[in-house]
Amino acid sequence: MLIVQKYGGSSVADAQCIKRVASRITKNKNEGHEIVVVVSAMGDTTDYLVDLVNEVTENPGEREMDMLLSTGEQVSIALLAMAVKDLGFDSISMTGAQAGIYTDSVHTKARIKEIQCDRLRDELAMGKIIIVAGFQGLNHSGDITTLGRGGSDTTAVALAIALDADICEIFTDVDGVYTADPRIVSEAVKLDTISYDEMLELAHLGAQVLHPRSVELAKINNIPLHVRSSFNLNSGTIVKEVDNMEQAVVVTGIAHDLNVARISLFDVPDKPGIAWKVFQALAEAHINVDMIIQSAMEDNINDISFTIGASDLSIALNLMDSIKNDVGFSRYTWDDSIAKVSIVGAGMATNPGVAARMFGALAKNNINLDMISTSEIKISCTINNNQAVEAVNALHKEFNLDKN
Amino acid sequence: MLIVQKYGGSSVADAQCIKRVASRITKNKNEGHEIVVVVSAMGDTTDYLVDLVNEVTENPGEREMDMLLSTGEQVSIALLAMAVKDLGFDSISMTGAQAGIYTDSVHTKARIKEIQCDRLRDELAMGKIIIVAGFQGLNHSGDITTLGRGGSDTTAVALAIALDADICEIFTDVDGVYTADPRIVSEAVKLDTISYDEMLELAHLGAQVLHPRSVELAKINNIPLHVRSSFNLNSGTIVKEVDNMEQAVVVTGIAHDLNVARISLFDVPDKPGIAWKVFQALAEAHINVDMIIQSAMEDNINDISFTIGASDLSIALNLMDSIKNDVGFSRYTWDDSIAKVSIVGAGMATNPGVAARMFGALAKNNINLDMISTSEIKISCTINNNQAVEAVNALHKEFNLDKN
Repeated sequence: MLIVQKYGGSSVADAQCIKRVASRITKNKNEGHEIVVVVSAMGDTTDYLVDLVNEVTENPGEREMDMLLSTGEQVSIALLAMAVKDLGFDSISMTGAQAGIYTDSVHTKARIKEIQCDRLRDELAMGKIIIVAGFQGLNHSGDITTLGRGGSDTTAVALAIALDADICEIFTDVDGVYTADPRIVSEAVKLDTISYDEMLELAHLGAQVLHPRSVELAKINNIPLHVRSSFNLNSGTIVKEVDNMEQAVVVTGIAHDLNVARISLFDVPDKPGIAWKVFQALAEAHINVDMIIQSAMEDNINDISFTIGASDLSIALNLMDSIKNDVGFSRYTWDDSIAKVSIVGAGMATNPGVAARMFGALAKNNINLDMISTSEIKISCTINNNQAVEAVNALHKEFNLDKN
Repeated sequence: MLIVQKYGGSSVADAQCIKRVASRITKNKNEGHEIVVVVSAMGDTTDYLVDLVNEVTENPGEREMDMLLSTGEQVSIALLAMAVKDLGFDSISMTGAQAGIYTDSVHTKARIKEIQCDRLRDELAMGKIIIVAGFQGLNHSGDITTLGRGGSDTTAVALAIALDADICEIFTDVDGVYTADPRIVSEAVKLDTISYDEMLELAHLGAQVLHPRSVELAKINNIPLHVRSSFNLNSGTIVKEVDNMEQAVVVTGIAHDLNVARISLFDVPDKPGIAWKVFQALAEAHINVDMIIQSAMEDNINDISFTIGASDLSIALNLMDSIKNDVGFSRYTWDDSIAKVSIVGAGMATNPGVAARMFGALAKNNINLDMISTSEIKISCTINNNQAVEAVNALHKEFNLDKN
């Protein structure tokens, strides 16, 4: 088998961790597999580099940030390749550029355009274990780019696709994907498999284990992902295409997100292009908008509510002040004491009444719903954030997830 | 003017240092010059990385060492480019690879083969201040190489040649090249100019201010070097071709080296190829031999003495044990309590009696000479190391260097 493995920053935090990862890699090699490993920067390297930047300037420029931050992965690939060789195995480290990872030129959040993997194939053919720097690539001008949040996951999946790997293993500090966050739901159960679509929803909804971009990429190219712990040998969660016959379970998992704030605009004129002005302004400020609800109160006038990340709230409020007259709404309110709770399950689409069960379970626990948003395979609602733990536990029980 | 500047690790040791260098660079830019800057890794970065390696393995492999250590310069170029931009100037950082610096494949001590400076010229034409990572390049396979000791000096001189720069300024933590080490000779005087050949001898003889490779390169291509302090605006020492007419001074400077040990082999058979065996064995162990003296004691039998770096002594002695029977010498002695003291001056070649003055001055101070070695422009001798300071001061006075 050709296996692509990805180890995150906590898995290579220090020399001991790096040696443990090396030993694991060589075990897999001894089992007869071809191994390509993607690594992130060691533990807190990135924080250290960002601190240095803050001492130098407030406006570092994105090209120079990429030049700087990409050194973090370069350090870990070199050390990991050394550790693998120390165990008697032939190994070679490669920067993103050397691995042939070409991206667009959007520094700090570049997208992979192409992987030219001639050299990767040559080195694999020589029996080497290849250690590739995650999170980075090269643009057409020869400048170093980084892929932004979840970048190393994306590197791993993209390499697995380019090399036609049999599986892409994502090693992390948890055992896999759970029916809910085990830190707040003691009965949470690790899932053996989950569909790409369900994983995508969970990733978007705040489950930290995989970045949505990498799941998307895996889904489009049908590469199975194995999310597992780097601290034990347990099998984790396989993310793959699951056909409908298998989807007996209505709800697969519960997600929650405490980093949410709501802004509501009142008396927005109901004319074409007005909503666009609001969300265009937010997009230009790089603020992600999640749920949007528009309610027609009376003729020609709407109220619009939307949620954003809580950390973006103050910038967003300044923005609302500056566009208020132009857009023509009368006033706004905001609330950062909310949480988003979601149920996800591919079986939902063919099982009516799931929303009713969800709302009923919350109501029975005296939990008030604020905004509601649905897709084919998920239902999200915002509630008061001090009821989030209660809500997630109630939903976990309602959909029998502890008996998975 | 097109100026290439090189700043060493102590000049960019922390954020404050980096900002000071940035301010200096932009002053030169404001004077109307085109500026290309070469930087080393920040202060103790390399030590930190080497410590990490030691925790991981005893045999890191040279390709991976280069992969690792080259990140040090990549961090400093990014931060310096940020600091320059912060002052309102357009700037771009470049790795060795991006600057088009191609080397051979001898990892950890590669030699520059070629600089393809199309991109450098393009960025200069756009008015940018270019910050290039010293000490590193790319080999023909696309692997990162490093240039070994003095690498950043070499990068700066090679770039100055490739770009046909008007001058190459080497910024360091001393004010220039002195007639002797000012830490031991209080009357030592900074030299305004020195010839390439004299600088080469001084660099080889232990003056730390410039690496011999970079001086050699500058000499062959006739690029003037300006060695000066990054901590003040004083003019330093210009290293350039000095024609004979100017060389009124017989002795330009005194060098000393305490890191010396002598090995003497007795009763070496006087047959072709015997000396070769000894020095070949030392070369294979990467031990640099400095002075060699062979004295024919009687027919068919020689004594051979040579000096090496004191840190290589124990390896060299093991080597002598292992080749003793093959080479056929009867026994050896060694001494690591010696120092080498040298006088250097291009005027020496045309002024007879310099050696006699040197030996006389030492004799007057009851300093015994051990080995002697001469070239066109220098005379070195080894003495007891606890008389080194006395010897250097005596020679400094004898040749009137305090009145330079």
